[in-house]
Amino acid sequence: MPVIKTQRNSSKRQFVIGKAAKLFREKGFAATSMRDLAEEVGVEAASLYNHIQSKAEILQDICFRTANLLTQNLENIENSQVSAIEKIKTILRFHIRQMVNNYEEVQVADREWRHLTEPYLSNFKVQRRAYRQRLANIIIEGIQKKQVKPIDPPTAVIIMLHAVSGIESWHRSLEKISAEQLEDNMIVILVDGLKI
Amino acid sequence: MPVIKTQRNSSKRQFVIGKAAKLFREKGFAATSMRDLAEEVGVEAASLYNHIQSKAEILQDICFRTANLLTQNLENIENSQVSAIEKIKTILRFHIRQMVNNYEEVQVADREWRHLTEPYLSNFKVQRRAYRQRLANIIIEGIQKKQVKPIDPPTAVIIMLHAVSGIESWHRSLEKISAEQLEDNMIVILVDGLKI
Repeated sequence: MPVIKTQRNSSKRQFVIGKAAKLFREKGFAATSMRDLAEEVGVEAASLYNHIQSKAEILQDICFRTANLLTQNLENIENSQVSAIEKIKTILRFHIRQMVNNYEEVQVADREWRHLTEPYLSNFKVQRRAYRQRLANIIIEGIQKKQVKPIDPPTAVIIMLHAVSGIESWHRSLEKISAEQLEDNMIVILVDGLKI
Repeated sequence: MPVIKTQRNSSKRQFVIGKAAKLFREKGFAATSMRDLAEEVGVEAASLYNHIQSKAEILQDICFRTANLLTQNLENIENSQVSAIEKIKTILRFHIRQMVNNYEEVQVADREWRHLTEPYLSNFKVQRRAYRQRLANIIIEGIQKKQVKPIDPPTAVIIMLHAVSGIESWHRSLEKISAEQLEDNMIVILVDGLKI
């Protein structure tokens, strides 16, 4: 039954990609070999190629899947009928949850995308810039509607995205507050300063 | 005159370290060779050794000089008679200025310190942890004095330090706001949300 075979392959492929994300995050994409990955997965290097073609393909998968998630979420929120502050909060909460629950892949997409090959590299850069511009547009809209202080929108976007990447330290810290507390605290610290 | 000779050596050494910081930031410490550095400085690799002993020594110099700057600043502020909010603002402004004016070295100290060798690595880790704890203590003091909202202090520290590292994007952006505007915007966004 081809359908089931595809499904099984696909879940094994996902398993391999998950292990790759872990290694790419820990060692960096450039320093991770297919041999390292085979060892992490617990198979011979040759049998990895049943599931994936190359390291480059795995990185593409990780980067574009993450981009899709974030863009899809942004689209839903852009069109919702709430204030700019509420939009920013909802987007930030989504980013925070991704960094909490889907940490390895999100970090790899954020840090290792420069290792993508063409045409993926240029495409990812364009998407990344567009995403940041759309976040800035929500802030611009908020400033115009007097919901947000007259700050520089690109600076606010940089601060928010970099603050979220700080969740890396939260993952490493020994005495963690809960994920919910982390999320609520980040929203207070990052969003309350924007409100008029 | 030995005094002058020492001075000239020292400024040449500084020049080499500045070039090394640039390379370490761009390529990472691990991927930078002494040959790359010699090329960047514009001398033969052999003559680099008149000024520095090893790549490791350069990284130590960069990391500990940056740590000293930040710690010295923190000590001055901890003992000042101003509110916790004012202390946080002053510390953040110092971090922001370092990231604006002393970008290469600060980024290298922040990102590449894991490549330090012992005993420097353990020492740097301890200093880094202590620094973050002292920042958190200022926030704790502010919460106790009802100057700062009851947020989780380590989370606030993570957010502030990671937000500052976002100045990397500012350096790369084509249409930059001025350094003063950047600083003022970051303070509004990061500190206004903390105030009660």
